[in-house]
Formats: sequence, structure tokens, C-alpha cells
Amino acid sequence: MKTITSRENPGFRQLRTVAAGKERGRALLDGIHLCEAWAERGWPVLACAFAEDAAGHAEIAPLIAAADRLGADLLALGRPLMAQVSQLDSAAPIVWVVAPPTADLARLAGRDAIALDGVQDPGNVGTMLRTAAAAGVKVAIAGPGTAGFWSPKVLRAGMGAQMLLDCVEVPDLGAALDTLGVPVIGTVVRGASNLYGFDLRGPRAWVFGNEGRGLSAAIDDRLDERCTIPHSGAIESLNVGAAAAVCLFEMQRQRMAG
Amino acid sequence: MKTITSRENPGFRQLRTVAAGKERGRALLDGIHLCEAWAERGWPVLACAFAEDAAGHAEIAPLIAAADRLGADLLALGRPLMAQVSQLDSAAPIVWVVAPPTADLARLAGRDAIALDGVQDPGNVGTMLRTAAAAGVKVAIAGPGTAGFWSPKVLRAGMGAQMLLDCVEVPDLGAALDTLGVPVIGTVVRGASNLYGFDLRGPRAWVFGNEGRGLSAAIDDRLDERCTIPHSGAIESLNVGAAAAVCLFEMQRQRMAG
Repeated sequence: MKTITSRENPGFRQLRTVAAGKERGRALLDGIHLCEAWAERGWPVLACAFAEDAAGHAEIAPLIAAADRLGADLLALGRPLMAQVSQLDSAAPIVWVVAPPTADLARLAGRDAIALDGVQDPGNVGTMLRTAAAAGVKVAIAGPGTAGFWSPKVLRAGMGAQMLLDCVEVPDLGAALDTLGVPVIGTVVRGASNLYGFDLRGPRAWVFGNEGRGLSAAIDDRLDERCTIPHSGAIESLNVGAAAAVCLFEMQRQRMAG
Repeated sequence: MKTITSRENPGFRQLRTVAAGKERGRALLDGIHLCEAWAERGWPVLACAFAEDAAGHAEIAPLIAAADRLGADLLALGRPLMAQVSQLDSAAPIVWVVAPPTADLARLAGRDAIALDGVQDPGNVGTMLRTAAAAGVKVAIAGPGTAGFWSPKVLRAGMGAQMLLDCVEVPDLGAALDTLGVPVIGTVVRGASNLYGFDLRGPRAWVFGNEGRGLSAAIDDRLDERCTIPHSGAIESLNVGAAAAVCLFEMQRQRMAG
């Protein structure tokens, strides 16, 4: 294989387009951990780029072989080019280009879900996916204004949780919740019933809203249940990722208790 | 008052030094919300800088008056200079320079605390302070390698929780925990007793470690109790801020239940 050293190489230019989030239906898996998580699912890989001087490394060689097996174009890059593709502080030695799967919501009816209504911060979105996967929730739905599940920063914060969940990005969150067909529950900062008074053993769609504005009016109207996380009066509210952790693990606790 | 328009003005230069985190014992409160939270405590203010064209604004005028009452030097800045001081995406119309209080740990003995052992990400640290304040915890201790409680990004993510907690930054976290004198509890990813089996009604010092490496060996040795948050096996671990939310609110839940 020839090492690519020119920025004008068409394969390299396409990698850069994907890395910038500018190619619809494509995502960049940046670094060993995300590539390993994808490889475990056995899904197709479109391209695999790696630093040519790392090709023999014990963690990299098996990932290059896996990508080859999963159908990828292989691209050996010089380190300077690799640093222009990877978004990590110290450039990753390997990245994969993949087509994120899209789940069919109609087939997921009746399951637990987390639904994000305009959660903007990529760190929050990634953390919430990771929390959902850890709490045994299987479906994640992004409504308009939510940071893309497969964008580089959300992938990084999610630590591969995207590959353990059925992820769906929808233009109409209310319609998606109708399709899912389970009770929709949301948190309000004060005044609703105490979270710890709810029986959460049955399936739920948990809705979380924008960091500043909270839920949109349309989704707020759509709630079947409203709960408040009881907290010390001096603080206005929890970070949305922290609120999700409290809610999803209270559900987990109740289910473990039976 | 004369409006400052020159970058060479000494008052402006000092603001920039504080904003860059380069002046020990000083913090920049960036924007209305943080200044309001500080004003509620009635603590001294060293300097108050505001965009001169915002001085009469209904939210700004009372904060300028409060800063004046609390002893601040007042600095009216042209908008271009204000944009060089505020770190927010759209520059805040007001910032305060303050001297963060330092709590005396010996006087806090016996209280609940959250202790951070090398938590690096400012967003995580701020979220954890906000969660601690919401869960009724009163003391926050930062060990070496932890993002500074009063740094601009941690202040932003903490949404003013710093002002509701007794915050202490220490060179030796183990010694600080000895001084506090309550049982020290930490989470491990797997293999310890289930979090939900612990009786958490008595005081605790909750220790959380670095995002990648977890707890340092010295602090791990210092733990009185080890718990595991029971999660779906497919995900390796929770984000540290999410883990803190689960633990602190399980404590809160048990105490509310009596």
C-alpha cells in the first residue's frame, strides 16, 4: 500500500469532509476505542485511515485487518495528514469512516427510550447516551436542535454508547413518541410530584429539554407524567446530563428491587 | 465615569490577566447570573467592569450599584474591550473580579463532602459542584490535578454552585479527608457491593477520580467503603459527573425516606 502524503489526494480530501461533519450519512470514528466498539458490532466500514508508522502496533494492526474484512478502503497516511483528520488533542493513529445505522422506530414500539428535545451541548448529549446504555435503555431519539448523535464530539463523550443503542434522529419528536407508544415522562424544576414517588417498573420514554429553555411547548404538552427531582432550594436546577442520570438510575434501582 | 477604550489602560490590562486565570487568588465572574449569585452572598467585590452602553439596562444597573456598595472599582468599557474580557460566546455585558473564599476544613469536620481526585474536565467539575449543591452536600474539596473550582469554565458549568458550597483546594487530598473525619466512599466500575445496598443516611465524603485513570492509588487505599453502580454490562462505565449524580441523589433519596 502506498502512503498518502499529499493534501490533494482525493481519498484524503474525502476524509477531511467527513471529519468536518460535512458529508450526510457518514461519521468519523476517531481513535482506537470507537473503532473497537464498532468492530464488535460487525457493521460495514467504508474507509480506514491510519498513521503509516503505527500500522504494526499491537492495538492498530488488528483494527486495520478488521476494517479490511468489513469492506473498508485502506489509507495509510503520513503523520502530518493524520493530524489533520483526527480531532483529538493528540491525533489518533486510526480513524474509520462509517455509515451510522438508522433504526426503524415502528419496530421499537413499547421499549424504554431517552428522547432529547433540543439538547445542544455535545458533551451533555454524549454523556446522556452513555448513561442510557448503562441503565439498560435501548432507544435514543434526537429531536430538532439536538447535537447530532454521530458528530465527533458526541461520539467522543458517548464513548461508543451510540453502537449499543438504537439511535434515531427525527424531524418531529412528538410523532416519534406516538410511534414508540410508551408513557412519556419529563422533569420539571419544581412543583411536580416527587420522582421517588413514581412506579417506574414499566416502560417509559424519558424526555429532556434544552439546557437553557427546557422542553419545547409542544413536547411539554405531550407529557403523560411530570416529575421533579427533589433538591436543595438554593440551586436552581441540575445539569441536564446529571438529571438524566438521576432519573434513569432511579428506574434501574426500582427494577432491580423488583 | 470615563469609558475605557484603550487596551493599554492598566485597569483593563489587569482584567485581562484575571480573565486568563493568571492572577492567583482572583476569579472572574462572567455574566449576570454569576454576579447575581455572588451579590446574594454579600461578599466583597474587587472590580466591576461593564459595557458602557448597557449601564442603564434593568438587569445591569442594580449589579453595578451592588458592586459599588460591595467596594468594587467600577470600569465602564467600550464593547470591543468588553469582548476581550468576557469568555462567553456572546460577550457578557458585566463581569466582576472577586477573591474566592477559602474554607477552613477543620471547622467543617463531620459534614458531607464531595472530593475530586484529579477530575480534569472543567465541565465535569462544574456539573459535579452543581449536583452536590442540589443534593444538599455543603463541602467540595479539590485535590491535585482537578480543574480549578473558580476557573472561568468551571464557574460557567457550576452555575454559581461554588457560592453555595464551602470550596477548598488542597495539595494533599488524603490529609484533607482525615481532617474532615467522615467515612470515605468511592465508586469502582465493577466488583464492589451494590450502591443501593449501602445505608447512606450518615455523613459521607464521596471521592471521584480522573476521567481516564480513576482514583489515584493513595486515595483508593484511603477508602472506607467501595460501591459499584449496577449497570448494563455492555457499557464500560458512566461519565464521572453522571456517576456523582447517581450516588449523591441515592443518598438524598434515602435521607428523604427517613
